[in-house]
Amino acid sequence: MDGLSHGEQTLHDIFRDSFVARRGLSGPGDDCARIQPPARSRLVLSCDQLVEGVHVESGTSARAMARKLLRRSLSDLAAAGASPWAASWTIAAPADRPLAWLKRLARAFVEEAAAFGCSVIGGDLSRAPALVLSCTLLGREGSRPAPGRGGARPGHWLVVTGRLGDAVRSGRHLRPEPRLVEGRILLERYRAAAMMDLSDGLAADLPRLCAASGVGAVVQLDAIPLAPPLRHDEAGWRSALGEGEDYELLAALRPAEARRALADPVLRRAGLHVIGDVVAGAGVRWEVDGRAIDPGAAGWSHDWR
Amino acid sequence: MDGLSHGEQTLHDIFRDSFVARRGLSGPGDDCARIQPPARSRLVLSCDQLVEGVHVESGTSARAMARKLLRRSLSDLAAAGASPWAASWTIAAPADRPLAWLKRLARAFVEEAAAFGCSVIGGDLSRAPALVLSCTLLGREGSRPAPGRGGARPGHWLVVTGRLGDAVRSGRHLRPEPRLVEGRILLERYRAAAMMDLSDGLAADLPRLCAASGVGAVVQLDAIPLAPPLRHDEAGWRSALGEGEDYELLAALRPAEARRALADPVLRRAGLHVIGDVVAGAGVRWEVDGRAIDPGAAGWSHDWR
Repeated sequence: MDGLSHGEQTLHDIFRDSFVARRGLSGPGDDCARIQPPARSRLVLSCDQLVEGVHVESGTSARAMARKLLRRSLSDLAAAGASPWAASWTIAAPADRPLAWLKRLARAFVEEAAAFGCSVIGGDLSRAPALVLSCTLLGREGSRPAPGRGGARPGHWLVVTGRLGDAVRSGRHLRPEPRLVEGRILLERYRAAAMMDLSDGLAADLPRLCAASGVGAVVQLDAIPLAPPLRHDEAGWRSALGEGEDYELLAALRPAEARRALADPVLRRAGLHVIGDVVAGAGVRWEVDGRAIDPGAAGWSHDWR
Repeated sequence: MDGLSHGEQTLHDIFRDSFVARRGLSGPGDDCARIQPPARSRLVLSCDQLVEGVHVESGTSARAMARKLLRRSLSDLAAAGASPWAASWTIAAPADRPLAWLKRLARAFVEEAAAFGCSVIGGDLSRAPALVLSCTLLGREGSRPAPGRGGARPGHWLVVTGRLGDAVRSGRHLRPEPRLVEGRILLERYRAAAMMDLSDGLAADLPRLCAASGVGAVVQLDAIPLAPPLRHDEAGWRSALGEGEDYELLAALRPAEARRALADPVLRRAGLHVIGDVVAGAGVRWEVDGRAIDPGAAGWSHDWR
């Protein structure tokens, strides 16, 4: 008697056979994965979800889902200036989801993880009424501790990587580029005082950074780097502030460090722009030509009645 | 502008305010949690899911769901002989789930985790068409490495803790007792050569241990400790082998260690029974009075077409 269904066994085989051995990590197959962190190392952990019909449209390919699931979590590691190390994930899938589709999902996830230097050490598989994926990543901190969101101080400059907005229409939300290198550089070379990734839109995410730091912010809407074809008008700002899914980094830097960072060749390649200032107080003031405006964009959030 | 919905903010506040500080762990609130493992420590990681309508009936209370979610993962740690340390979890919930229900879920999860010595360091929250929860636990290995499933050798005895079967009808599946103490004792005092928890039923789980170890097994059905009111008849064995959700430990011990373990007062209190032998070969032979029988129970598994 085997005890394992054909489908479940097939997926377990994929995980076992595709495990990328890495010092300090055991492969999947036991009740727990074993992790032996290098001496005096510090780890970071992030977790994220991908829900069909919420984060991706129904009918999105298995590969695109695996890619977005992993990269969203990698983007959290980027905000910590950490290096990807190990991944564990869960798959909840409807019983009528073809096994071939699940195999593509599993293979794509393992391949994506390997491409980012991450071993898939564990997972769990279940039937469910809807397709819900989750991913937990372990990363290794670099020489500086993850800054978190609480270190912004009045006088710091606010910078963002890349360009914001238009992620959904353009399809960029399905293949975000986690800013792992840029995050590490912002932290280690330019001592980012606070850093987070922009997943829910600047209008939702910046207030979180401000609240965690106990500060306010003033943002110049004109200074926000917009993804083409967006332009600096109401529609452009609304997309950049409220749409979310940018997976760019938002950081608070001391002005001297910010000036140096703006000249950093790697950061310049990704794009680095000063969008405003950290100020005393609370809340975010959005300005155009010194005039406060209400961008009318609340950012993406999940609400329950 | 706040940027966070009322519901999401409420849940985040619960996690932040209820964080149990523990050396080496940061609290929730940043993109990543920070983990500083004690010097030369080894960690284990397990992850598990709880899907409404699959692992628990629709309408199960928030507290019961939180409890089962956490304890299923703790049971994996028990099989590794590890101590609970940190938890990260994800909630995917329908938009019409009342916020009050989600608050009960969150509070119950944090309380359960604290009761087992575990800090909740991270999480993610999303809308979804169905209620799907996942839990990732980090544990600390004791003085001996987690045995895993691959160390059973011909001549070892197979033991189980507690009593098997009837978990669903009796409601025990909603409040499993993770065998954390027993797992540690089986590993550290009696050098368990292989260990796993029984979540899918002995008929599904034992073949996994055998396959991982490259061995076979002979089980005496009469020797399986059955949960009352089950009796040693076909219905009793079918429940014990095929129903799953026992969350007891299955271990392979050397005979001399097994004899000592049977006299251990803590293990006796939980219940420890020898149910069979590890043999050369492959597959499991289920015997009654020396006669092989097909228990007709395949164990619980998740299949896709």
